[in-house]
Amino acid sequence: MEERNNKPIVKLISKPENMLKTVYTACRTCYSAQSPVEMYENDVDEEKMLKLIRNVVASGHHSTIEHIQVSFAISNVSRACTHQLVRHRLMSFSQKSQRYVQEKGQFDYIIPPTIDRNPELKEKFISFMGEISNKYQEFVDAGIPAEDARFVLPNAASSSLVASLNLRELIHLANLRLCTRAQYEIRCMVKDMCEALSKEEPWLKEYLVPKCEAIGFCDEHKSCGRKITKAELFEKAGVNC
Amino acid sequence: MEERNNKPIVKLISKPENMLKTVYTACRTCYSAQSPVEMYENDVDEEKMLKLIRNVVASGHHSTIEHIQVSFAISNVSRACTHQLVRHRLMSFSQKSQRYVQEKGQFDYIIPPTIDRNPELKEKFISFMGEISNKYQEFVDAGIPAEDARFVLPNAASSSLVASLNLRELIHLANLRLCTRAQYEIRCMVKDMCEALSKEEPWLKEYLVPKCEAIGFCDEHKSCGRKITKAELFEKAGVNC
Amino acid sequence: MEERNNKPIVKLISKPENMLKTVYTACRTCYSAQSPVEMYENDVDEEKMLKLIRNVVASGHHSTIEHIQVSFAISNVSRACTHQLVRHRLMSFSQKSQRYVQEKGQFDYIIPPTIDRNPELKEKFISFMGEISNKYQEFVDAGIPAEDARFVLPNAASSSLVASLNLRELIHLANLRLCTRAQYEIRCMVKDMCEALSKEEPWLKEYLVPKCEAIGFCDEHKSCGRKITKAELFEKAGVNC
Amino acid sequence: MEERNNKPIVKLISKPENMLKTVYTACRTCYSAQSPVEMYENDVDEEKMLKLIRNVVASGHHSTIEHIQVSFAISNVSRACTHQLVRHRLMSFSQKSQRYVQEKGQFDYIIPPTIDRNPELKEKFISFMGEISNKYQEFVDAGIPAEDARFVLPNAASSSLVASLNLRELIHLANLRLCTRAQYEIRCMVKDMCEALSKEEPWLKEYLVPKCEAIGFCDEHKSCGRKITKAELFEKAGVNC
Repeated sequence: MEERNNKPIVKLISKPENMLKTVYTACRTCYSAQSPVEMYENDVDEEKMLKLIRNVVASGHHSTIEHIQVSFAISNVSRACTHQLVRHRLMSFSQKSQRYVQEKGQFDYIIPPTIDRNPELKEKFISFMGEISNKYQEFVDAGIPAEDARFVLPNAASSSLVASLNLRELIHLANLRLCTRAQYEIRCMVKDMCEALSKEEPWLKEYLVPKCEAIGFCDEHKSCGRKITKAELFEKAGVNC
Repeated sequence: MEERNNKPIVKLISKPENMLKTVYTACRTCYSAQSPVEMYENDVDEEKMLKLIRNVVASGHHSTIEHIQVSFAISNVSRACTHQLVRHRLMSFSQKSQRYVQEKGQFDYIIPPTIDRNPELKEKFISFMGEISNKYQEFVDAGIPAEDARFVLPNAASSSLVASLNLRELIHLANLRLCTRAQYEIRCMVKDMCEALSKEEPWLKEYLVPKCEAIGFCDEHKSCGRKITKAELFEKAGVNC
Repeated sequence: MEERNNKPIVKLISKPENMLKTVYTACRTCYSAQSPVEMYENDVDEEKMLKLIRNVVASGHHSTIEHIQVSFAISNVSRACTHQLVRHRLMSFSQKSQRYVQEKGQFDYIIPPTIDRNPELKEKFISFMGEISNKYQEFVDAGIPAEDARFVLPNAASSSLVASLNLRELIHLANLRLCTRAQYEIRCMVKDMCEALSKEEPWLKEYLVPKCEAIGFCDEHKSCGRKITKAELFEKAGVNC
Repeated sequence: MEERNNKPIVKLISKPENMLKTVYTACRTCYSAQSPVEMYENDVDEEKMLKLIRNVVASGHHSTIEHIQVSFAISNVSRACTHQLVRHRLMSFSQKSQRYVQEKGQFDYIIPPTIDRNPELKEKFISFMGEISNKYQEFVDAGIPAEDARFVLPNAASSSLVASLNLRELIHLANLRLCTRAQYEIRCMVKDMCEALSKEEPWLKEYLVPKCEAIGFCDEHKSCGRKITKAELFEKAGVNC
């Protein structure tokens, strides 16, 4: 059985110059008589900048972190995953088109982990991907255009995209999609996005967490137990929600 | 060979009360000393309202038509089509989930017209949809959750959704997707959306057209010939573009 | 001293037909094998619809309530207030233009309550509004266009607008602007918007509340004391935040 | 008469690293079987990148240029101008707050050019700004909070902000606001924004133009004569619009 790479490939390809200084200047502009042009030109201690940003973000004034946008090149993710991802309407996407790009030979695909760890099911899955590939080629050979032949291609077929989003939306994405309730593949992809960015900008690490870490409790219907649920929190405190 | 319904099913399920009056009031508010509350309460001749709206829209002041939002129930469209549709980020969607809704028996699917009109290819397509359905059930029966078994489901699998959008976005959608360059299925679906609305609000008909009808010429790379191309227009006029 | 109306005038001018049924159909579409067209055509008990909507909203699946959009005609609000309001980027606005609408005679204005309840300051304020009006007219009489003469007009000058927003954004607006930390005038305006809608659609009343009512505690830096603060809640529960 | 700086101060404070390469990678991702991660890592000739981008933008596929976001620090603009600017809902803003920042002494302000070039009116204007400043201080001294005292401050009062937007929105902003129909001050500010960016990224210059330059004709109701009007173009070409 051939060895496949089943994990998303994620690369941070673009981020603003002077990320921290830009957010700091934006935060201070709201509350200061000084002009942002002057502020930006002054040297400021990094700790001081971080402290202000932490306060402003903690106060819920999240428009200040929209001034940072980052871009990721992503490949080896299923069309099932990208159909979920593109529902984040505040992101920008450029995705490989199945209308314009015709598959040559076996298309790439993703095997879900529940299937991947069962050798018998995995073999059945891989073999069926081969059958789908053959059927796709039969239609193409019969003169059906790629945009129609692709109707037989499965959700498992892998896709590529460039995705950009601002820091506010990235934190929102992390809050939702790092939750264990999110589907495995998108959770894995978002985790890689967050790690790629945190590696270069470590001050962001504390914000790129599942929602329960951000708010201190779990508000999902079914909790994974990582954090106290909202109902338990209020019960323990003896307070009516 | 079984007879299948291959066309989108589109139903306008919601529109605002007093659509025309609302847009008229919005348009006048910008240019009048009168309060919109008073304006709204006065009776105005329909022709007079339409004339003002036509002028305002022609002048490119399109934020005034955002005050109208309409909702459509849509079914019998492929996941290929919905992946295109949900890229319209100014729309609101509630779509049938392949994670939470498990297929029982043969899933519904769409046959692309290029295949549908060739009896041999059509039979091959239908038969392969049966094979995919069997494979999906095999995985489900082996204990694989629906959210992972769906990795074998094809782009052809049909979906359902409720989609809402304001009039500005609907005109944009019509401009783009009624163009013959758009894929057959989404063109068909958007045509049905526009017709369902125009039937109840005939004054909107003139706006729900492909882009070339709206601007008077074609600015696509490859033109279908319905309208003069931009290059030809400037050449005929003897003007440098 | 002349008697002035200092309160926003708010009128709900448009809402969708079948509001509850539309949201219900959207919620069910996500989790059901049935088509939304069929669902919409069936009669459903109101209590059953409300129960489903409550569950879906409580689970944080808020895109389902975007399918409802409502429109308000608003007048007698200051330009200070509208500059705040138009920062809500998911709303649609058509606002009276100070460029195109020239003031004739004394412009309308809003007196802030802290000044309104002090007779001496109030008189000073009203008299100064008269001086500004005279200055504006002097510039207009000297041939200065309205768009430039308006540079002397104050933040107090009243404005009119038509504002539309979907239910998700209205709940967000209520959560933020019904908080006692919001400025008096916008709080008053948003309260009137919520009451106008709740009067016609009483099932929405429970959602149109300040954030502390929605989440059960206060997460502002400075609390008004209406609800337990987040810090106190965790302390009482003996849990680390 | 004191000498005042009446022009917006605009500084480009942030742009992405590798701007051109990021857009190029996004454009190619849509039409290529290669992964964007590999593409990004290959060296590509600048001319080749520019050619592809030009083609993609000319074809109207503008989502590809959303991957670039830039940030500007802006000061010395009137509140009249910022009330216009913040209506661009796809931008991100952090603006100096008149609620939280109390004016000390004479507030800064902008004199409209029609007044600025008339010495008599200019003197009257400056003197009146002094009167407003005195009145503001009187209210502050009487214990009125800044958020209410500001009700006497004029549209002329200057403001500061950090504004971020992606390239698609910047081109839209340029198309609208570089038109001679836009108000003088915002036209001047947007011109400075475009020049600041074009200076560092000269390949963008051709896109940062008024709409008539972009489309080849003028579609305003009242034309300034810079370009042929749409009506004249069709008439010259002997074509019905």
